[in-house]
Amino acid sequence: MAEILKPSLKETPYPAIDVVVPREDKTNLLGVVMDNQYGIAELPGKSFKNGESFIIDFGEHYTGYLTFTLGWKGVSCDAPVRLRLIFGEVSTDVAQPLYPYKGWISASWLPDEVLNVDFLPQQVRIVRRHGFRYVKIEVISTSSNFSATFSDLQVQAVSSAGADRLRPANYPSPMLRDIDRVSIRTLHECMQTCFEDGPKRDRRLWVGDLRLQALVNYASFNNTALVRRCLYLFAGLQREDGYITACVYEKPQPRIGEVVLIDYAALFGSIVLDYLHATKDTQTAAELWPVAKQQLELALKNVNAQGLFVAPEKDYVFIDWNPGQDQSEALKGLDKQAAMQGLLIYSCQQGLVLAREVGRQQEAVDIENKVALMKQAAVRQFFDQSQGVFVSGEKRQVSWASQAWMALANVLPREQMAQALQRVMAMPQAVRPMTPYLYHHMVDALIRCGLKLQAQSLVETYWGAMVSTGTNTFWEAFDPQNPLSSPYGSKQIDSYCHAWSCTPSYFIRNGFAQRE
Amino acid sequence: MAEILKPSLKETPYPAIDVVVPREDKTNLLGVVMDNQYGIAELPGKSFKNGESFIIDFGEHYTGYLTFTLGWKGVSCDAPVRLRLIFGEVSTDVAQPLYPYKGWISASWLPDEVLNVDFLPQQVRIVRRHGFRYVKIEVISTSSNFSATFSDLQVQAVSSAGADRLRPANYPSPMLRDIDRVSIRTLHECMQTCFEDGPKRDRRLWVGDLRLQALVNYASFNNTALVRRCLYLFAGLQREDGYITACVYEKPQPRIGEVVLIDYAALFGSIVLDYLHATKDTQTAAELWPVAKQQLELALKNVNAQGLFVAPEKDYVFIDWNPGQDQSEALKGLDKQAAMQGLLIYSCQQGLVLAREVGRQQEAVDIENKVALMKQAAVRQFFDQSQGVFVSGEKRQVSWASQAWMALANVLPREQMAQALQRVMAMPQAVRPMTPYLYHHMVDALIRCGLKLQAQSLVETYWGAMVSTGTNTFWEAFDPQNPLSSPYGSKQIDSYCHAWSCTPSYFIRNGFAQRE
Repeated sequence: MAEILKPSLKETPYPAIDVVVPREDKTNLLGVVMDNQYGIAELPGKSFKNGESFIIDFGEHYTGYLTFTLGWKGVSCDAPVRLRLIFGEVSTDVAQPLYPYKGWISASWLPDEVLNVDFLPQQVRIVRRHGFRYVKIEVISTSSNFSATFSDLQVQAVSSAGADRLRPANYPSPMLRDIDRVSIRTLHECMQTCFEDGPKRDRRLWVGDLRLQALVNYASFNNTALVRRCLYLFAGLQREDGYITACVYEKPQPRIGEVVLIDYAALFGSIVLDYLHATKDTQTAAELWPVAKQQLELALKNVNAQGLFVAPEKDYVFIDWNPGQDQSEALKGLDKQAAMQGLLIYSCQQGLVLAREVGRQQEAVDIENKVALMKQAAVRQFFDQSQGVFVSGEKRQVSWASQAWMALANVLPREQMAQALQRVMAMPQAVRPMTPYLYHHMVDALIRCGLKLQAQSLVETYWGAMVSTGTNTFWEAFDPQNPLSSPYGSKQIDSYCHAWSCTPSYFIRNGFAQRE
Repeated sequence: MAEILKPSLKETPYPAIDVVVPREDKTNLLGVVMDNQYGIAELPGKSFKNGESFIIDFGEHYTGYLTFTLGWKGVSCDAPVRLRLIFGEVSTDVAQPLYPYKGWISASWLPDEVLNVDFLPQQVRIVRRHGFRYVKIEVISTSSNFSATFSDLQVQAVSSAGADRLRPANYPSPMLRDIDRVSIRTLHECMQTCFEDGPKRDRRLWVGDLRLQALVNYASFNNTALVRRCLYLFAGLQREDGYITACVYEKPQPRIGEVVLIDYAALFGSIVLDYLHATKDTQTAAELWPVAKQQLELALKNVNAQGLFVAPEKDYVFIDWNPGQDQSEALKGLDKQAAMQGLLIYSCQQGLVLAREVGRQQEAVDIENKVALMKQAAVRQFFDQSQGVFVSGEKRQVSWASQAWMALANVLPREQMAQALQRVMAMPQAVRPMTPYLYHHMVDALIRCGLKLQAQSLVETYWGAMVSTGTNTFWEAFDPQNPLSSPYGSKQIDSYCHAWSCTPSYFIRNGFAQRE
C-alpha cells in the first residue's frame, strides 16, 4: 500500500542568483553573513585556477541536484579537471572548513563531493541529492594550460509538497509572516518520497517528525496521500514484538529501523487521529487502529500497579535530545520520567478518541482504565505543591518537558496547568528544551491552557531568533543561549532544514487557537 | 569521414582475481611486488570500517569502468558511505601515496576518485574510465553502526582492438614471447575510439604514437579502419598554415591540438605509406597525399640553401623526451639537430615512395631535389670521420638519436651506418634514448643496417627489463639506469601503458627483418 502511494518527483530548475563572500559579523547569531560579490551573470566571464574557489547563492533553500556547464579558457584543455564542492544550508556550512571533523556521527554526512571531469566543455550533474542554499566550488586542479569556467549553475529541485494552497492573506505581524514563510519552506524541503526529517541528514522517516510535519501539511500543502503512505510504511514494518520503530528506511528498499522509542511508538495513534480529522478517511484510520492500539498496549506494559511508567532496560524514551558536550549549562541532562508519564497519558487519550471515531470503543476499555490510574499517579507522584510545578526523578528536577507533557495530558485543571507552565518559564534553573521538537510541545501546551499570547511570544522569540540570522529554513537544534553549539560535537554536521522545527505555521495558521 | 569510422565500444566484464598486499623487494626494478593475501571469493565475507583498505588485482591490465556491489554489515546502515579509490597500472601506483604530488603536469591525472554512496546495498559504477590492473579501495567513513562490504568487483573493459589474429605459433625465445604478449596488451589497451597514447594519460591521439601503433596493429589486430579514422582526424584538423598538430583531441568534439612538432608532422606521410602497404587502399592514400606533401613542404621551408634543417623559433622538434630533474646523468639534454636532419630525409624518402605509389610522382620533384641536397649536407656537416659517428650541435654531441635517424635516412653506405650504430652503443658518454619511442627507432635502424642480432638483443634487454618487473603493459618512459625516475618529476603521474612502447611485436612478428 505504501509503495502504491509513493510519489514520483518532478525536477524543477532554479538558477543560482549571486556569487557571495562570507564576512564575520558578531551581531548575527551564526557569526557569519554573506556579502554579494557579483551577480551570477558575471560568473561565466571569470575563470578559476588550482586552489581558487567561489561561493554561489541560490537565494533560497533547495533540495535537489546541482547542474552546471564546466568549460575552460586558455591555450588548451589538455587534462581533466578536479573539483571539490561543498553544499551549505546556512552561511557557516560553506564559510568554515569541514575538516578536521570532530563530531561523533558519521563524517559521510558532511556534504562535500570531489569530482573529476575528463573532457570539457561538459554538462555536469551531481549525482547525489543535496539540500542547500549555497555551494562552494573549489578548483583543485586543472593544468597550467587552462583554467575552468562555470555557467548555467542550476539546482534541479525536487519536492512532493506541491502548492501552499492555504497561505493566510494576513498575518498578525511581519515577524510571524516571516516565521510562517520559513516554516513552510522547511516542510516543503522535507517532503520527498516520504516525510524526511531533513534533506541533508538523515533523509529518513521518523515518527516524531512525521507527526509534526503532518500537522503543518494539513494547514498548507495538504498532501494527505504522503501522510497515508508514511503511516503504512510504519504499520508495514513492525518489529517482531509488534512495536513500530522510531524510524524506517525507505531506500534502497523499505526497511525497519533498529531502535524503538516508546514515546514515538505511543504517539502513532495521534498521527492517525490527526489524519482522520484532516481527511475524514475513516477506512484508513480503521485499518490502522489495531497498530495504534498495539503501540499503546505495548507501552502500557511498562506501567506498574501504581499507574507509573517505569522505563524498561530495552528500548528508549526520547522526549528531547540530550545535550552534547559543547552545550550550554542551561541544558542539563533531562530527567524524562514525568514527561513520559504525561506523554503516555496524552497518547492514550488520543487513542481513545480514535477508537471512538472508528467505532472500536469497546476495544479500548483497558486503555481507558489505565489512563485514569496514570493520571492520578501523575499528580500524586510528580506534582510539587509547594513549587506549583511537576518534578521528575530522584533529584526532583524541574523542566519545561515535564510541564508541557503534563499539560497536554490534562492531568490537572486548566488554570493549575497554566500556572505550572508560566512558572517553569520563569525559573532560570529549569531544564529548557534543546530542540524545536520539544519547543513545539511547549507552545502546544500553552495554547491548550489558554495562554495564547505566551504561545505566540515563545514562537516569536525562539523561531524568530533563527529567522533573524537570515536562514531560509528552521534548524534541527537551536539553543538560544549557545547558538553555535551542536548536539553532535560539530555544527558542520547539523541539519539546518529539519522537519520537526516547521510547526510555527501550524500554530500561526490556526490563530494560536486549540483545534478540535 | 573520421566520425563515420568511429567505432562503438562494447563492454566486456572481467572479474577481480585476488586481494593483494604490497611488499618491498629491491630485486624488482619497481621496488615493490604484490603478494596474494586471499582470493577474491573471500572478500564478500569481510567488512571494512573507517580508514581500512584493501587492494584488488585483476591479473591483467584493463581499460574500462570499475563496477561492484557495495553492501553493509552491522546493526544498521544509517549513513552514507564515503570511499576513496586509487587505480594502479603497476604495483607502485597503489602501494605508494599519491599525495603530496610534486610533478609538473596536472594533478588531475592522478587516478583517484572519492565516492559518496547514500543507500546500501548499491550497484556502483565508476563513471570515469580508468586504465588499471590494481584498485586500492579505502573506506573513508561509514557510521559506528555498520561496516562496508564489497562483492562482484568487475571491470567493464573496453577496446576497439578485436582479436589478435596474427599471433605467431612459435617464438625464438620465451623472453620474446613474453615481450610480444606485453606489447600486444599495451596496444590493445590503447585502441579505443582512436589510437590513444595511453589509457591513463593523455588518452589522446598523437602522430608519433599513431605511427608506431599502426605498425604493430597491422601485425596483430589489423584493425585498419581505426588507422584510417585517425589519419582523417589529423587531416581534417590542419592548422591555418597547413600543419597538422602533434596531437588532436577527440572529446567532447574533435579539436585541433595546440602544438606543432615538425618531426611528427613530417612523418605523417610515412603513416599513410604504411597504411597503403597494409591495406592496398590506394584511394585513401591518394586522398591523403596532398596533406602529407604539405607537411613535407612546410618542414622543408626550414632547410637552408646548404641543405641543413634549421629549427624555427615557432614550433618544436620532439625526437625524444628531455630528461626531468630526477633523471640519471646518462640522459643529458639531447641535441636534436642531426637527428632532425636524418628524420626529415627519411620522411621525404617515405613521401617520395608514397607519391610514386599513388601516381603523383610529378608533384614530388622539388622534394626529391631537396633530399639529395640534405643527404650531402648531413654527411658533410654531421659525420665525424675520426670517431666514425654522427655528431650534433656546437658541442658535437654524440647520441643514439643522431645515429638512428641518420641510419634510417640512409645517408651513408649500410656498412658505415652499421658501424656508427655499434660504436654509439659502446660509447658510455653517448646520450641514450629516454623513451621507448626512440628505442624503437634505434632497433629499426639496427635492422635496416643488417644488425638483426643486435636489434633483438636491444629489445630483449630494454623491453625485457620492464617485463621482468611483472608488468602487463609497457611504459611511457623507462631509463634502465634509473628505473624509478619520471620525466614529470613524479612517477605517480607516469603512464605505464603507453602506445609508443608497444613496437617489439612489430619487430618480433617480422622476424627482426626489414620490411618491403
